[in-house]
Amino acid sequence: MLAFGDHTFTKRTSEKKEKVKSLWEELADYSASDHYPFHMPGHKRFPKNEENALGCYKRHPKNEENALACYKRHPVDEMYQYDITEIEGFDNLHDAKGLLLALQQKAARVYHAEQSFFLVNGSTGGILSAVSAVAQDGKKLLIARNCHKSVYNGIALNRLRAEYLWPETIESFGIQGEVSAEQIRAHLEGRQDFCGVVITSPTYDGVISDVRKIAEEVHAFHIPLIVDEAHGAHFALSEEAPESALECGADIVINSVHKTLPALTQTALLHVQGTLVDRDRLKDFLTMYQSSSPSYLLMASIDHCIDFIAAQGKEAYEKLLALRKQIDTSAAKFSRIRILPAGPGRDFGKLVISVKGTDMDGWELYRILLNRYHIQMEMAAPAYVLGILTVMDTCEGVERLIKALEETDQELSGSAEIKEQKEKDDIYHIEPAASGLSIYEAMQRKKEWLPPEEAAGRISGGFLYFYPPGIPVLVPGEIISGELIFKIKNIREREEYLTGISDEGRLCVLEAR
Amino acid sequence: MLAFGDHTFTKRTSEKKEKVKSLWEELADYSASDHYPFHMPGHKRFPKNEENALGCYKRHPKNEENALACYKRHPVDEMYQYDITEIEGFDNLHDAKGLLLALQQKAARVYHAEQSFFLVNGSTGGILSAVSAVAQDGKKLLIARNCHKSVYNGIALNRLRAEYLWPETIESFGIQGEVSAEQIRAHLEGRQDFCGVVITSPTYDGVISDVRKIAEEVHAFHIPLIVDEAHGAHFALSEEAPESALECGADIVINSVHKTLPALTQTALLHVQGTLVDRDRLKDFLTMYQSSSPSYLLMASIDHCIDFIAAQGKEAYEKLLALRKQIDTSAAKFSRIRILPAGPGRDFGKLVISVKGTDMDGWELYRILLNRYHIQMEMAAPAYVLGILTVMDTCEGVERLIKALEETDQELSGSAEIKEQKEKDDIYHIEPAASGLSIYEAMQRKKEWLPPEEAAGRISGGFLYFYPPGIPVLVPGEIISGELIFKIKNIREREEYLTGISDEGRLCVLEAR
Repeated sequence: MLAFGDHTFTKRTSEKKEKVKSLWEELADYSASDHYPFHMPGHKRFPKNEENALGCYKRHPKNEENALACYKRHPVDEMYQYDITEIEGFDNLHDAKGLLLALQQKAARVYHAEQSFFLVNGSTGGILSAVSAVAQDGKKLLIARNCHKSVYNGIALNRLRAEYLWPETIESFGIQGEVSAEQIRAHLEGRQDFCGVVITSPTYDGVISDVRKIAEEVHAFHIPLIVDEAHGAHFALSEEAPESALECGADIVINSVHKTLPALTQTALLHVQGTLVDRDRLKDFLTMYQSSSPSYLLMASIDHCIDFIAAQGKEAYEKLLALRKQIDTSAAKFSRIRILPAGPGRDFGKLVISVKGTDMDGWELYRILLNRYHIQMEMAAPAYVLGILTVMDTCEGVERLIKALEETDQELSGSAEIKEQKEKDDIYHIEPAASGLSIYEAMQRKKEWLPPEEAAGRISGGFLYFYPPGIPVLVPGEIISGELIFKIKNIREREEYLTGISDEGRLCVLEAR
Repeated sequence: MLAFGDHTFTKRTSEKKEKVKSLWEELADYSASDHYPFHMPGHKRFPKNEENALGCYKRHPKNEENALACYKRHPVDEMYQYDITEIEGFDNLHDAKGLLLALQQKAARVYHAEQSFFLVNGSTGGILSAVSAVAQDGKKLLIARNCHKSVYNGIALNRLRAEYLWPETIESFGIQGEVSAEQIRAHLEGRQDFCGVVITSPTYDGVISDVRKIAEEVHAFHIPLIVDEAHGAHFALSEEAPESALECGADIVINSVHKTLPALTQTALLHVQGTLVDRDRLKDFLTMYQSSSPSYLLMASIDHCIDFIAAQGKEAYEKLLALRKQIDTSAAKFSRIRILPAGPGRDFGKLVISVKGTDMDGWELYRILLNRYHIQMEMAAPAYVLGILTVMDTCEGVERLIKALEETDQELSGSAEIKEQKEKDDIYHIEPAASGLSIYEAMQRKKEWLPPEEAAGRISGGFLYFYPPGIPVLVPGEIISGELIFKIKNIREREEYLTGISDEGRLCVLEAR
């Protein structure tokens, strides 16, 4: 189609010049118009007028039934009526000059970003683009070890070497905590071989690092800071929310709007500010890693979420705090189950429900909540269960969770298994030895699959991680320790599941040379 | 969450072992269940019971109104009730062992593939994965020059060098035609430096190459053939449809189900067969290039499309042929407008409507169809307009198009501009000279933006293409010819739009060293 912007010939498109409606309104108007599609998508918006649909087809003998068959409707067929492609007046995400540019500018205003981009391939597409944009041949990337696998994938695709920042451990809960500005400075001091730093804040467990101090440190070395704030998209809701990574000075920030805000799964935003990132390069990679047929449903869902933040963010966040307060007040009365307290440096939307030091592990609690109370939690870990609380939660849900935890708490007692428990806890706290191979180099090598007992001491050929959270325990090119094998066996004996292990329980290692 | 498969504790999940329902049915069942979500997505399926939603919140003074505001519903909110993430019983696309594995196996049966994968990042994600899976350091990829930009992106990301197969030209219509097995043999003969071949069939214009002969040639050199069959997903509908690239022996085939079948935009399939492709490697890249939070709406739409093909494909294709026949019969009576005849080697779903040799160009016809008849075509090119006809088209739409073309045909006359016209036609037929830089190398270099007249003779720093079709006219590392500059000026004088040119009309070139 033609570029958006140079048509004055239809009311629909010319309107846009005056005022930007929401993408949903635009799609609804278009859906209601009499424009007929001889373009993709092939569903042609599920034609409503079946009479017409059949008209010409009836003329062909014995086809009426078939014709009907073709029109068997879709369970949620309404959404097909809004699902278009880059047609007249609807711009092109990969070269936005009109409607989508205006909507992304609106998102930037709401997030206080210099520039924002809609992401239809999840935060994954944004992380890959961010890492690729800052990558320089022969340089290294300094990343928090608790980064999502997509950061490691970006490192592999760009053939970079990584050095790791190991987050502190919050022992009382057995979870990973912050990375500090001091750690980062110590790592960068006197080094010229880093092209950027990547951290995750808030973490999957809701731990927020001091991004302001970290950004200052990183910028002192004239390199960009990328913050994976996928789990902090809701920080934009209110002044009362934690300071966002953008406000703290990060150069690129990625937010998953679908994780903690009302938006469809697979939707996210990438924001950029400052002069340390080459924006042409960033845009090139956003175009490379994302579909050239981006879904207007996903984009409309992002835009709807932006309007929601702008119109009702403050009140919505108050509601979130109210729900959280109700949970914390009840949890204070529990005798054994503990919830990581809300407060400074914590995302109020994350419920870390700990059974550490009890005779139950996180997986058991997860199953009790699911089977007895039909409460689906976000994640089960050895010592805790993770829940996500958002502005869309209901009183009934919150009260059901409180009741479930109260009843379960009463059944718990202290445990003899505490030691074994602790050992299972810290699978994410083992520091694997490096083999000297980069992730890319290891991925290029020949591989074989071995039973755990034979894999000890060998170089890993793959990633090993729990999903969720998708944080690697082991990365290609790292040496598999006996300690890790021991833990893996523990986990598998409990019929728990690690991604990266074959159905036969084998591990991928590099062929010995 | 836990892996799919090892739970016997809820009826819902255990059911799956007996029978695989459609993903929509599974999602509908789950949506109707009383399971409460403390997990992403943050929209929590837009809670229906507003009483509950408000209950606890009312207890907080002055909040009732706000609480209501938070529940402002979404225009198409029904789809949110189906939008989940990798929760209990719904498997994990990136490590499919249960429901999603079974559904992808069903897709493979329908497409007669050994193995099929759902793609939620469009065919783009599949093309990048396919190219990455066959890439070998230091080797080259032989590709048809009319491949989609995503193939070139895959070449850049893998730092490969490309050599090009220039398709034949169908002069009478000014469009690109087939690539031949002979061309490919001539190119591969006596060479050891290719790791694979990529072609597009059918082309955007609906031209089908002899993939069977091509696959035989390519396999004679023991390298894999990747066929971008994004526009041929509907070949699976019926025995009467053209033979699919898979049937012809291609090793990897990518199909955009959203382009020519009833499926949501951004959905596609990747199929693999044979032993020339390392499937572990392919899977690794599919995981890298696609969101770790794949949309269940998109996946359900793919699954629904697969069921549609299996249940009604044959009749649906008969309907498509009937509609096409109606168009061709009418077109036979036109005096100046010509439609590329349906027949062997042609995709019946593509309408190449030519105004070559008339006093009108494709862009003018596109505007007439849009403004006078409210018919939105897929693409406008200098000498033709492209339409996509699918099994979802209606009689009213087809008759409106016929009437529009009949009336326009009568207004046309022969043209004095034919020569100029022809010159504009063949922007896709210029063979740019190579600079010796690979796409990746050129992308790494410093760039500057110059006005066209100053860019002649310089090395391009970017891609230049019409979108659609997204086929590059110019690739980073190629030398910008005066002939191309002349054509670019022609195009821009007509206010037509090329992606890769700045708003000021400048071209991206490498800084002179």
